[in-house]
Amino acid sequence: MNISKINIDEIIIEALREDIGTGDITTNTTVPQDKIAAGHFIAKADGIVCGMEACERVFKIIDDGIEFTANKKDGDIVVKGEIIAAIRGNARSVLIAERTALNLLQRMSGVATQTADAVAKVAGTKAKIADTRKTTPGLRVLEKYAVKVGGGTNHRFNLADGILIKDNHIAAAGGIINAVESARANAPHTLKIEVECETMKEVGDAIAARADIIMLDNMSNEDMKKAVGYINGRAVTEASGNMGDKDLREVAETGIDIISIGALTHSVRSLDISLKFVIEA
Amino acid sequence: MNISKINIDEIIIEALREDIGTGDITTNTTVPQDKIAAGHFIAKADGIVCGMEACERVFKIIDDGIEFTANKKDGDIVVKGEIIAAIRGNARSVLIAERTALNLLQRMSGVATQTADAVAKVAGTKAKIADTRKTTPGLRVLEKYAVKVGGGTNHRFNLADGILIKDNHIAAAGGIINAVESARANAPHTLKIEVECETMKEVGDAIAARADIIMLDNMSNEDMKKAVGYINGRAVTEASGNMGDKDLREVAETGIDIISIGALTHSVRSLDISLKFVIEA
Amino acid sequence: MNISKINIDEIIIEALREDIGTGDITTNTTVPQDKIAAGHFIAKADGIVCGMEACERVFKIIDDGIEFTANKKDGDIVVKGEIIAAIRGNARSVLIAERTALNLLQRMSGVATQTADAVAKVAGTKAKIADTRKTTPGLRVLEKYAVKVGGGTNHRFNLADGILIKDNHIAAAGGIINAVESARANAPHTLKIEVECETMKEVGDAIAARADIIMLDNMSNEDMKKAVGYINGRAVTEASGNMGDKDLREVAETGIDIISIGALTHSVRSLDISLKFVIEA
Amino acid sequence: MNISKINIDEIIIEALREDIGTGDITTNTTVPQDKIAAGHFIAKADGIVCGMEACERVFKIIDDGIEFTANKKDGDIVVKGEIIAAIRGNARSVLIAERTALNLLQRMSGVATQTADAVAKVAGTKAKIADTRKTTPGLRVLEKYAVKVGGGTNHRFNLADGILIKDNHIAAAGGIINAVESARANAPHTLKIEVECETMKEVGDAIAARADIIMLDNMSNEDMKKAVGYINGRAVTEASGNMGDKDLREVAETGIDIISIGALTHSVRSLDISLKFVIEA
Amino acid sequence: MNISKINIDEIIIEALREDIGTGDITTNTTVPQDKIAAGHFIAKADGIVCGMEACERVFKIIDDGIEFTANKKDGDIVVKGEIIAAIRGNARSVLIAERTALNLLQRMSGVATQTADAVAKVAGTKAKIADTRKTTPGLRVLEKYAVKVGGGTNHRFNLADGILIKDNHIAAAGGIINAVESARANAPHTLKIEVECETMKEVGDAIAARADIIMLDNMSNEDMKKAVGYINGRAVTEASGNMGDKDLREVAETGIDIISIGALTHSVRSLDISLKFVIEA
Amino acid sequence: MNISKINIDEIIIEALREDIGTGDITTNTTVPQDKIAAGHFIAKADGIVCGMEACERVFKIIDDGIEFTANKKDGDIVVKGEIIAAIRGNARSVLIAERTALNLLQRMSGVATQTADAVAKVAGTKAKIADTRKTTPGLRVLEKYAVKVGGGTNHRFNLADGILIKDNHIAAAGGIINAVESARANAPHTLKIEVECETMKEVGDAIAARADIIMLDNMSNEDMKKAVGYINGRAVTEASGNMGDKDLREVAETGIDIISIGALTHSVRSLDISLKFVIEA
Repeated sequence: MNISKINIDEIIIEALREDIGTGDITTNTTVPQDKIAAGHFIAKADGIVCGMEACERVFKIIDDGIEFTANKKDGDIVVKGEIIAAIRGNARSVLIAERTALNLLQRMSGVATQTADAVAKVAGTKAKIADTRKTTPGLRVLEKYAVKVGGGTNHRFNLADGILIKDNHIAAAGGIINAVESARANAPHTLKIEVECETMKEVGDAIAARADIIMLDNMSNEDMKKAVGYINGRAVTEASGNMGDKDLREVAETGIDIISIGALTHSVRSLDISLKFVIEA
Repeated sequence: MNISKINIDEIIIEALREDIGTGDITTNTTVPQDKIAAGHFIAKADGIVCGMEACERVFKIIDDGIEFTANKKDGDIVVKGEIIAAIRGNARSVLIAERTALNLLQRMSGVATQTADAVAKVAGTKAKIADTRKTTPGLRVLEKYAVKVGGGTNHRFNLADGILIKDNHIAAAGGIINAVESARANAPHTLKIEVECETMKEVGDAIAARADIIMLDNMSNEDMKKAVGYINGRAVTEASGNMGDKDLREVAETGIDIISIGALTHSVRSLDISLKFVIEA
Repeated sequence: MNISKINIDEIIIEALREDIGTGDITTNTTVPQDKIAAGHFIAKADGIVCGMEACERVFKIIDDGIEFTANKKDGDIVVKGEIIAAIRGNARSVLIAERTALNLLQRMSGVATQTADAVAKVAGTKAKIADTRKTTPGLRVLEKYAVKVGGGTNHRFNLADGILIKDNHIAAAGGIINAVESARANAPHTLKIEVECETMKEVGDAIAARADIIMLDNMSNEDMKKAVGYINGRAVTEASGNMGDKDLREVAETGIDIISIGALTHSVRSLDISLKFVIEA
Repeated sequence: MNISKINIDEIIIEALREDIGTGDITTNTTVPQDKIAAGHFIAKADGIVCGMEACERVFKIIDDGIEFTANKKDGDIVVKGEIIAAIRGNARSVLIAERTALNLLQRMSGVATQTADAVAKVAGTKAKIADTRKTTPGLRVLEKYAVKVGGGTNHRFNLADGILIKDNHIAAAGGIINAVESARANAPHTLKIEVECETMKEVGDAIAARADIIMLDNMSNEDMKKAVGYINGRAVTEASGNMGDKDLREVAETGIDIISIGALTHSVRSLDISLKFVIEA
Repeated sequence: MNISKINIDEIIIEALREDIGTGDITTNTTVPQDKIAAGHFIAKADGIVCGMEACERVFKIIDDGIEFTANKKDGDIVVKGEIIAAIRGNARSVLIAERTALNLLQRMSGVATQTADAVAKVAGTKAKIADTRKTTPGLRVLEKYAVKVGGGTNHRFNLADGILIKDNHIAAAGGIINAVESARANAPHTLKIEVECETMKEVGDAIAARADIIMLDNMSNEDMKKAVGYINGRAVTEASGNMGDKDLREVAETGIDIISIGALTHSVRSLDISLKFVIEA
Repeated sequence: MNISKINIDEIIIEALREDIGTGDITTNTTVPQDKIAAGHFIAKADGIVCGMEACERVFKIIDDGIEFTANKKDGDIVVKGEIIAAIRGNARSVLIAERTALNLLQRMSGVATQTADAVAKVAGTKAKIADTRKTTPGLRVLEKYAVKVGGGTNHRFNLADGILIKDNHIAAAGGIINAVESARANAPHTLKIEVECETMKEVGDAIAARADIIMLDNMSNEDMKKAVGYINGRAVTEASGNMGDKDLREVAETGIDIISIGALTHSVRSLDISLKFVIEA
């Protein structure tokens, strides 16, 4: 996937340390040292698979003799009962890595599935579904990747790679015009400037200040439609504010460019996946 | 809370690094360096508050001049609109820490709220609601703490602090009796031995092997009731298997001691909380 | 061994960093870059070998081209003069890793040897020899593994994986009964509850509170025998308190189940082992 | 002490993480959150105290509200029964930090005591007692500090801060003269050059090569005396090779400058110290 | 400064570890433990000061009892002989931290000074001086901060916070149009798209693809002027390619918006600053 | 090279993290996942190559499928236009690692080139060119290696591996004699003692105290010559103090043994090297 190994390995190793503690006492005291195990990752619900490489990497970090054979790749649809991947290797190693691998795979698949649902709802409109920074601490890079896999687009990754001027910044800077000008003068020229607006007055200021992106925050669909019409392509438009609880199609039909949804990552139902295996001789 | 600073600080610092990246470009280019901000954490939905110390610690790590005044403590009920805490300090510092603090507070409150719901459902029975190892990688210690705050009880924290003999261990060891005996002979004498059983035959073996805890996995409520009757206090009984989708009261009425629910931590709806503030002179 | 690579590698890398500092100035200025070295690990005293994998791993981390051939495995007896393992590879790499590898191997073998001595003393009784948390900071997982290899059993690994209610806890909780009940109500159901007792009165309370394990601390052998008789199988019994200086056979003959000895790990005589080698062309 | 906080804090934090794991389940479930504890560190045997700052730092890292009052300072003699330090603070914090603090204090005091014994044996001669790199992995800086506190002197800390040409280097370089010249030409001019010699022939070569220090390895006292006479001040002389088992006075009387003893740190009997405390209201 | 403590502390602690190693043997063996030192940081050359907070932080991390009084703030001009700051505290602590503090302060001041020189050369034109990713590994955040302090502007901080399509990307994507469209479709909407062009043909393509920024790489000033005229405000223009060796005024007079100079950070002359102090009683 | 992988990998991984951030957004959105790239590292200026292994290691850490073929080895002369190395592998991987690899290679080659220039200036005299601790924070081990590659010699690596008594130590100790005696009595016997002297009086004291090395700091060449004559081989002599701005040949002709130059590492012009490549099918 597009996440480099040097980012993901650190997350996985920490997750393994957390789950293994001082050692898997059950496995070490009941499973013979040289036993070989083979098994299948099976979907227990319908959804979009995501996190195959992370999953494989968990096993490889514990024991690079484990063979992992993917039947699906990130972004594929699975239906309940389907085999997602097969695994084979030292039984102790497989058992030690199992839960961490599943915790990652299930969560990432959950995010991708949820994103795909949202994307489907706005199909045929020009609206894109985007994430936010409301991600799980420590897993942002994986969760934002899962949003992409689910068909969404990424908003900024952190406070450094995007300028988003919110109400508090505006108040501190003494108005939208001042805030945008100060940002334009002092920030890298490679970043666009986004301004959060709650009223038509603010939208007017943002346009006057030549904002690149205008976030319409907590507006009614009706107001949003007016704002989009007024902006008329002079800035990218983004709908925001509890979008997880809104009718996304109706939002999209306002003509908005981007709908950003915190719930894509802050309120996730993990995709149910289990590892079933046979201990071989 | 019962989580020592040396565990929690590491999580918070990683979370801040993830969110801040190379610096908060918006805040640094729009908010004057010495501006003071004051604000309130406000509940946008009903629930149980959890994570107040983690939340405060996020701000203190960024800037120990920030004052954080809690109106609620972990475990308290909040209703929509209530103020949870007040904050005051350097505006840049507050803005830089805000999202990370909220991400932790909202998630932990979500877990506590969800747990309290489950606990309420079994009120009056002897069943306790327990968590599992299906937690978010990196956040286990916080999520298990939130389960306690919500009124639940903790299952083992990791592979080292509990013996749970599952189907794969049983197959590898050549049966329940062998598995339990091997664990008893080789594991620390301070740990109880739990055995996962799917049939009455297995329950019989587990009792014969003198298991301390018997997990009844994916059984119907009817079968579970029979098993509990048969065990008759000779072992602690635990119900498991997609309990998040079951009628918990009916499960509890089988007479079971513990109901363990993966969904408490793997499928969480964050509690909606926002930070609203005023920039002062 | 039963210690996963993700635990042990971190210890080894830190140990190598500590010993190498900014580089092995002697080796780098006197040994030609492509020289090959071969050598033998030789026991200079009798004992039990322990730490073969850790030892091999030290060399592999420095240079995975080094060949390490074990003649003994963990738990084997060695007598003075025997070859424990052979090694062959780049001379600089071998020299750089040598001391760290020996420091680990000698210490772990020392712990295993000392444990085996204690185990031999109680042979034929039902008493098991156990370790404590009086281990060397940073090496607990290796030292507890060495105790197992020497024939001992492990007590809890850390403060999280066992409940051991000591005098201070009892005083704070207002008596043994209160303390045990509070622990039973609030701790995970997967952990046994152990109570430290110094008098028969306390033993009576511990039994009344249904403690799972009773530690008889600093009792005379005579009193211990009485206590064991009184407990009569209702709890596991454990002898504790400067056991390193006691006649272990006499302690064992009180009928005790477990004898825990801090000196197994806090006062260790390293097993003398050296690496002798020949520089080849 | 002379160990900077940035070195020692890392060791302590790792040690605390190792001992606390996911939390002190006993203390958290039996001791009320606001209980205050006071207590005394008491010597249970005679010896030299070492590690007072490390000990205090363990408590401060857990809870900087804990008061630690030292009655002894590093290097002081203690006799059985004496109070070394007093402590007062939150009972939970004290209990959580106790074992880690004692493990460090007892080990460091053990090393200092053992060193002082060796120093006493050579009193009145010009011989100094030195340590080696046979230290416990991860604790070298603390153990070498304890050797100083016990009246010994430090040999090199790691492979980077001293040149010690041993038999294998000599063989690889093609003789002592070549080895010393190669080291002198390529190593920093700030380091002395030490050569390990087992025969008078080698001593002659080392002198010819203008070695700064000559280690007389595994020589009889008689041969050592001859070598010292031959060297006659042209190099510092150092006795080495199982010195822990030798009569140190006899070794010193050969006129040697330095006696280096691996056992000072690889085979340590911890000084018995305990923390006894009273829980206050 | 605008660099949060959680970024900078890690850099400083690593730098201190690197410089201190196992301890400052000179200071610890020659300076009495309680000696107090006072001194001045004095400029030995003219330039722009930068890194005052980093410098102070080095001392505070070693010993928070050290008082650091700044006479200059970041961005101030200093002339040879001026006092930049005064320091007072434990002599050992000051000596241990001195070199690390100076290494950071001198380098950051060097970058700021060099940047200010470049900025002065283009004064009166609309061109801004920008940095690149050709920074010292590990110090980017400090060096880019120093560029800002020197009056320059920052280009992207890393590969994640800016899109810069270079020749290799263009070749891989099958032309500029394809590359820009692919980036626009798949990257976050918060980032601008910059394209590197070496010919007028490429500039034409970049304009056609609606690139936000056009980098004119290794063009003659004459060609650059033509390109700027052709672009005519439809994109931000940036001059690049060994700008450190060019006449910056002539480049600026082509009408370019940004001149990015790798040498600002890859070829730095540290500003000469020394710490002179008096040991007090 | 003589820098062990465990030192260098940490530096490289940190450097990659710094440059990659949350992912290379340009490469990931414009370069097809399976594209293969091949290219050449080409010198754009004359100099001494240094850092080939570090450079290769950057690519291998990102993707061990990348083939790196060195045409030059560390210490070789390159002239403008020469190919230093060839590379071939996955295009995305190569692009992601490119800048970090070049930043290290260019800087290390810059240091080696600068050192070789200085060494050439003193050719035929007995003076050696040495570095100092004025290195870039975090890169000392690489920069000191580059000094060696350029023909220089290394001064101490850090505060632990050399005793250098400066004016402040002398003042604190109450004179040179006291300072040297205190160091000799308390520091490891493996380290030489160097004393910084600014006057002939101090040189006299240093000789009287039997210093091993005498640093002549900020002396005129004439005075230095006198001092060297007076010392007459009784100590190693070292010239110091803004040597980067002096005529090194004249300094060398005073008969000095060592000339230490901070500018070798604190004021470096990176060697211009670029990676030019062809994307293959």
